[in-house]
This record gives sequence, structure tokens and C-alpha cells, in this order.
Amino acid sequence: MELSPVLAHIDADFDAAVARLSDLLRIPSVSTDPAFDQDTRRAADWLVDDLRTMGFNAAARPTIGHPMVVATHDGPPGYDGPRILYYGHYDVQPPDPLDLWESGPFEPVIRPSAYGDGKKIVARGAVDDKGQVMTFLEAFRAWHKVHGGPPVAVTVMLEGEEESGSGSLEPFLRENTADLAADVCVVSDTGMWNIDTPAITYMLRGMVYIEAVLHGPNRDLHSGVYGGNVVNPCNALAEILGKLHDRDGRVRIPGFYKDVRELEKKELKRWGELEFDEAAFMGSIGMKKSFGEKGRSPLERMWSRPTLDINGLYGGYQGKGAKTVIGSHAGAKISCRLVPDQNPDKIRKALVRYLEKHTPPGCRWEFQDHGCNPAIRVPTDSAFLRAAIRALKQVFPREPAVIGCGGSIPAVGSIQRILGYDSLLVGFGLEDDCVHSPNEKFELKCFANGIRAHATMLSEFAALRT
Amino acid sequence: MELSPVLAHIDADFDAAVARLSDLLRIPSVSTDPAFDQDTRRAADWLVDDLRTMGFNAAARPTIGHPMVVATHDGPPGYDGPRILYYGHYDVQPPDPLDLWESGPFEPVIRPSAYGDGKKIVARGAVDDKGQVMTFLEAFRAWHKVHGGPPVAVTVMLEGEEESGSGSLEPFLRENTADLAADVCVVSDTGMWNIDTPAITYMLRGMVYIEAVLHGPNRDLHSGVYGGNVVNPCNALAEILGKLHDRDGRVRIPGFYKDVRELEKKELKRWGELEFDEAAFMGSIGMKKSFGEKGRSPLERMWSRPTLDINGLYGGYQGKGAKTVIGSHAGAKISCRLVPDQNPDKIRKALVRYLEKHTPPGCRWEFQDHGCNPAIRVPTDSAFLRAAIRALKQVFPREPAVIGCGGSIPAVGSIQRILGYDSLLVGFGLEDDCVHSPNEKFELKCFANGIRAHATMLSEFAALRT
Repeated sequence: MELSPVLAHIDADFDAAVARLSDLLRIPSVSTDPAFDQDTRRAADWLVDDLRTMGFNAAARPTIGHPMVVATHDGPPGYDGPRILYYGHYDVQPPDPLDLWESGPFEPVIRPSAYGDGKKIVARGAVDDKGQVMTFLEAFRAWHKVHGGPPVAVTVMLEGEEESGSGSLEPFLRENTADLAADVCVVSDTGMWNIDTPAITYMLRGMVYIEAVLHGPNRDLHSGVYGGNVVNPCNALAEILGKLHDRDGRVRIPGFYKDVRELEKKELKRWGELEFDEAAFMGSIGMKKSFGEKGRSPLERMWSRPTLDINGLYGGYQGKGAKTVIGSHAGAKISCRLVPDQNPDKIRKALVRYLEKHTPPGCRWEFQDHGCNPAIRVPTDSAFLRAAIRALKQVFPREPAVIGCGGSIPAVGSIQRILGYDSLLVGFGLEDDCVHSPNEKFELKCFANGIRAHATMLSEFAALRT
Repeated sequence: MELSPVLAHIDADFDAAVARLSDLLRIPSVSTDPAFDQDTRRAADWLVDDLRTMGFNAAARPTIGHPMVVATHDGPPGYDGPRILYYGHYDVQPPDPLDLWESGPFEPVIRPSAYGDGKKIVARGAVDDKGQVMTFLEAFRAWHKVHGGPPVAVTVMLEGEEESGSGSLEPFLRENTADLAADVCVVSDTGMWNIDTPAITYMLRGMVYIEAVLHGPNRDLHSGVYGGNVVNPCNALAEILGKLHDRDGRVRIPGFYKDVRELEKKELKRWGELEFDEAAFMGSIGMKKSFGEKGRSPLERMWSRPTLDINGLYGGYQGKGAKTVIGSHAGAKISCRLVPDQNPDKIRKALVRYLEKHTPPGCRWEFQDHGCNPAIRVPTDSAFLRAAIRALKQVFPREPAVIGCGGSIPAVGSIQRILGYDSLLVGFGLEDDCVHSPNEKFELKCFANGIRAHATMLSEFAALRT
């Protein structure tokens, strides 16, 4: 089946594709906040309806949390080649801080981009991950319009809890192993090396995320009456958290680095050849130079070294002005990015043990889990990966880079362990897309090339049969 | 002029006095939050109207902040004895956390008390300071009803910013020195030793209160992309604040203890004789024992030792669930309780210098002042103090205790420095009144005895002339 008319249709239909993405972006599917549950549900239904228009058998399957969108297409009549599972997520991060958005986070707008005369679409989820999900959906649509369907068998699985710990994913995979059988998983939730250089990601960091609340006195206290005689949970929490890193920026939790796999020499060399621009990377966030674990390059710290970050801190009086109070409790949201071969459960236990070991007299901890998944590495020599590289070369002016990623995509590890096949991570985001930040955006050039790349990969995957 | 008919009138009129206090408590005069400015103004007007019904010349005088209620009465015809200034404040602390209140903070209710068959009134400001202000206002009212006015010349000054740093107080005192001339200031904003034992407070701690915000990256960041390569303001703030105390619970700011005056032997002995019940004090807040500066008794830590407490802590994502973000900034509300002879400006500078010295690379601090006033000591041998002791002995079953106080009443120091006379601190609160906490209350028995005590003190002050 011819690829060129598919690509021609994609170009002709691009404005409509942007309009469809805008419709999806208008739905505030913030999975972590129960206030948005109905909207999150709405986003799932929107995708099911859209997939059905492309000849997919689609449904929003119930889970213990937000629904899982599952859609299948058996490919051309009589097709008996490989089946590709496409994974993405339709939920988004909370939009706060709202006051820093130049336009409503759920009112997508098209603005001039910083790249030449290009344009970008601005909204929460523009690139993470609704925009990237639409790159392969639009590719399916084009194949459907031109050839009646994709050239290979396709299963689509879109999750609604990627931004809130993926609590339902593994139970769902275990219960639906047969329905989700495939030969490889394709994920578009990662980035390009730069706007002209596509990338295939082979390393992803894992994560352990807990919320720890330190409870002290049984009520808020007057700091004049009790100050000096009681454990102040704010003081105590700061002291305990403040000791989590040493002077060299290393995490002080016993055993934290024990299982960390060091990079191979040739890997380190290849990363060096990528010529990472530290000044540009840090400059874009208003900092002069990187700051982190001593003796490690920025790329190592981002891709192959574990971290511990406080993502949220609260205690005492949060309002305007002054209140002379000693709060009864103080809390922190703490996440660790993990690398091969750290065991998430071991790290979680070590973190909790560390906090408990430092419990001040008369105080107690309350812990809540917000996620626990291992880092992963995928093989760099599979037929699917080679096919993807061939496809990317046809669409982009520069050779694809094979890179790591500092973020976590829990699904990739779960699919590897439970469904038994690897993932191919091909994404079209850029470092300055403000993922998880105000004014998140997706370059329309990246959106268009992403659709073309997926359409081309489909034809390369189909060619693997012969 | 006879005292007994005044006391009789107070008893007969007590239910009406409780009703009047309830009216005042219904006004949410939270001075620190601009959203309540109109209500704060309303509380001032309410007091002006009430004072006028007692023959006072009263007005809500404008200031750079909330109005100052000033009222004067020249005493009996031809009176030429001492003039007493009564100080109190009509503003209150913010009521949060609201969910811990058993009834609306501004919907006063009468409930059975923990003391015998007594009753208590529950509301924000019940004791701090509206209830205490009403103890002397009701005494003036009774003297007015029975004898046409108080037996001495009286000036009343009620502040609207005591809970928010008293920003307008000193400018107002400087501009109105003549109007506020008096021989002594009587303050009812402190506590009793216990429900049967009145107390006169001769030591008050001072305070320095600043808000410090640490700014890092120019926006919130994805903790996967940037985690490990940037200063995380939440991590950094915890580390900096966590070093403010040493293992012995002493504040590590250079020079913090340099000017602290040690107690005299006989003072320490007298405090020992008070037989402070540490188990009860800590038990009431759910802790087993006190925790603080090593080698100091709980009373020393409360009355004569300085402290540093974080009253509020914030950074990153504060909402429900998880967000894998590195916040662009993190902040803390920090207050130090000061003792004689610490200099508030020196301590403030030392704290700021300490924080600035520990500024992480590429970050900057933003500071905001929320209060700065010295600790004070008042002489324990004045004629007014002896008169007050005589009065308290007539009203209460136990001898008055002469004590310190861990809290701060900025006005007392300002009056001493600017108006040039001392204060007499006689208050009727109890340790378990939940001052600054949910379910703040005032025992009706204390309210009634407070009114009687003020009525009796007025007659003892009048007797000083002869």
C-alpha cells in the first residue's frame, strides 16, 4: 500500500487535525484531583468516539480508577503480520500556578513560535500527552481515509492515570493480557533531540513518590505560649528533609546508590558525542549552570543518576501576613527518580525507614503512596527499532539520536513485565515545551512531523513481514 | 464612693454582659487579612458606640492601618488624681484551620466548661482579646450605672493591629503623646496562673517575624527533565531552615544569645516555687514531655529564653495527590521570640544575614517584615502594682502570682518608650483557652471575676490619692 498519498492527505488535512487536538485540549482531564473526575471521563469518551470513526473497535474500559481506552484494528483483510500496541495517556497535570498562564490552560490558542516562522499550540496537555497521542491517531486516520485502515494490526491503549501514579494500570494489564497481546509497544510521550533531530529513547528513569506528614501537638498552638517547649513540626520536618542530601549533592538514604548500574564506557562516549548544550538548557530556566551530584555530567544526572526532590512542602499558616502559630503538623510530597537497577520497593522502604528513624520525640508520621515504578532500558537492536529509524530518516533532515530520558513512563515497565514485550519510545516534544509548567505548548511543526513519522513507521512495520 | 453596689450591679447584669461580648465576637475582625478590613473597622465602631454609652468621649482615630479606638473620661467632678490608660486590641487571629472548629469561629456559643459546673464562651477572640477588653469595659459600665462614672480619670486605647504586627501603633503614639498622657497603663491580654489564682505579669517576650521566600528557576519545572540538575528551592529551603537549631535545641544564628539577660538567683527560685505542672501543660496538647533548649526548665524556655519557630512553610504543589514538579520558589514565615536584653533589629539582621549567607547558587531571597519588637520587664514594686494586688486578693480565693509570659504585647514596650510610663499586666485567660487555635474559649467564671477585679482595682487606684 502506497505511503505517499497518505502523507499527502496528512498535509491537506492538517488544519482539521489541529482543530481536533484543540477540542481534546479543552477537556480539563486532571486525573490527580477528584474535582475533575467527570472531565477525565469525558476525555476518554472523546477518544473512543474518535477511534470508532477510523474503523477501530473501541471502548472506555472500567478500571479501579479512571477508564482505560482500548481500541483494536486487525489491519488489512487477511493480515497475519505483527500487531503493534500504541500507548499514550489522556490525563494531564494540574494547571497551577494559574496566575502564570498567559491564556487559560484549557483554552488552547495558536501563537507564533520561537522557531523561525513556525506556530505553536498552547494549553495544558498540548504535548504531554494529548498532542503526542494525536500524532498516531491522525496517522491512523490518514491511512483509514486513503487505504481503509492501517497496514498492520493495531491495538491502542490510552491511560487516564499517568500523571497520578498509574494505580489502575497493572491490575488492568493482568486482567486483559490476552486482549493486549502484541509484538511491540510504540509510545509517544518523550522528546526529540532538537526540532530537526528526532530521537528514540532507550532509557527511562523510574520513580518512587510518597507524601509524608509529620504530626506533633494535637492542635495548632500559640507560638508565644508553647514556643521553646514543643516540637514544632515545621522546624522538625525542615531539619529531617534538610539532611537528605550531602554536600556533594548525593542522597544520604542508606543503600540509595547500592544497585545503581554504572554506564558502559561506549555509552558514556556516545552521550558525549551528542554535544548537550548545558548553557542553553539552564539558560531557558533562568539559571547560569547546572547544580547536582558532584562529578557527574548534566546528561548523566538527567538520564542515569537517581534523584530525590521535594515536590510539595506545607505546614503552619499559609495565608497572607503573619500568624504566630505552631502548626500541629507539616507535610512534604517527596519523589525519587530511579535508574537501572534500583528496586523501587527497596528505595521506598529505605526512605520511609530513614524518615521514621528521625521521628522527633512524641511525633508520628503519616505516609501516602503516589507511585512506585522501576527505571527501564529497551534493547537498541530490534527489527522494530531499525524500522523506526528508517522511517524517521525519511521525515526529518537529521539522523535520529538514541537517547535517555529523565522522566518516567510507568506503563513501559509494566508492559515489559506483564505483557512480555518491549517498547519503542518515539516522541516529538521539545525541551522548551514547558511540560508540567504554565504555558505548556507543542510546536505545530513537531505535531505535523510526528503524524508523518507515525504514518511512515506504519508502512515500515508492514514491510517487516516480507 | 462605695464599691459594693458596683459589684452587686455587675453580678445582676452579667447575662447582659455576656450578650454584649457575643455581639462583639460576631464581628470577624481579622486584621492580617485585607479581606476582613471592613469587619475590622466595624469592630472599632462597635466599641466607640459602646464607650459613649458610659459617658466616655470616644472616637475611632484614623491610622496608616486599622483605626485606633481612643476614649477618655476625666473621672469624678474636680478629680485631680492619677489617670489610667487601659490598653487592649479588638482584632483577632485568622480562624483557620476552619475544619477543626466545633462551631463557627464567629458564631459565639455558650458550652459547659471543664471546670466544675462552669460555662465557657467559644469563638475566635473570646479571650484574645475581645473578652478581656470587655472585662474593663463592663467595669466602667457598672461604675457609670452606680456612680455616674469611674472613680479615677481613664483613657482607653484599643488597637486593631496587635495580631498583625502593630504597624500603626508607634506612629500613632508619637503623634498623640499629649492625648495619651497617663500615670500607668493597665493591660488585660495575659493569663491567670490557674482558675483560682490571678496573676500579674512582669516579663513579656518580644518578637521578630519575617517571611523569607527563596526563588530559584524562573518557572515550575518537570522533576523528570530537570531533577538532578537544578537547585530545588524546596530542598534548599529545608536544608537552610533545618540548620537553624543545633542538637541541644539552641538557635545557631551567630550572636543570637549574645545579649540575653540571665535570671537572678532569687527570680529563678521564685519561679521554682510556682510548682509549674509540666505534665498537665504538655498533656493538654497531646505530648508527654516538653522539648526544647537543653538544660533549661519549661518556665525558663517559656518566659526567659529566646526561640525561633517556623510559623508557616510552603513550596511546590500543595494540592491533593501527586505532581512531579520542582517549584520555582519556596517560602517560610519565621518568628523569633525575644527576651531582655536582645535587640530586635540586631536579631532580624542576623537572621537575614544567616539566610543570605546560605543562598544556593543562582537563587535569591525575598524578605517581608511581619513585626519587630523588644521583650520587656516592668517594675514589681510600684504603688499601682501593690494596689492591683490588694484588689485581686479581694476577688480571688488564692494569692496573686507574679509571673512571666511567653507571648508578646508590642504595645507595652512602645508605651514604655514613647509615652514614658510602665504597664500593669493583669489578665484573666487560662492556659487551655486555645488562644490562636480552633475552638478558642473564655471561661465565664474568668470573665465575671475579671470584671469584678477591674471594678475593684478602680476603687484601689482611686484610694491612692489619699
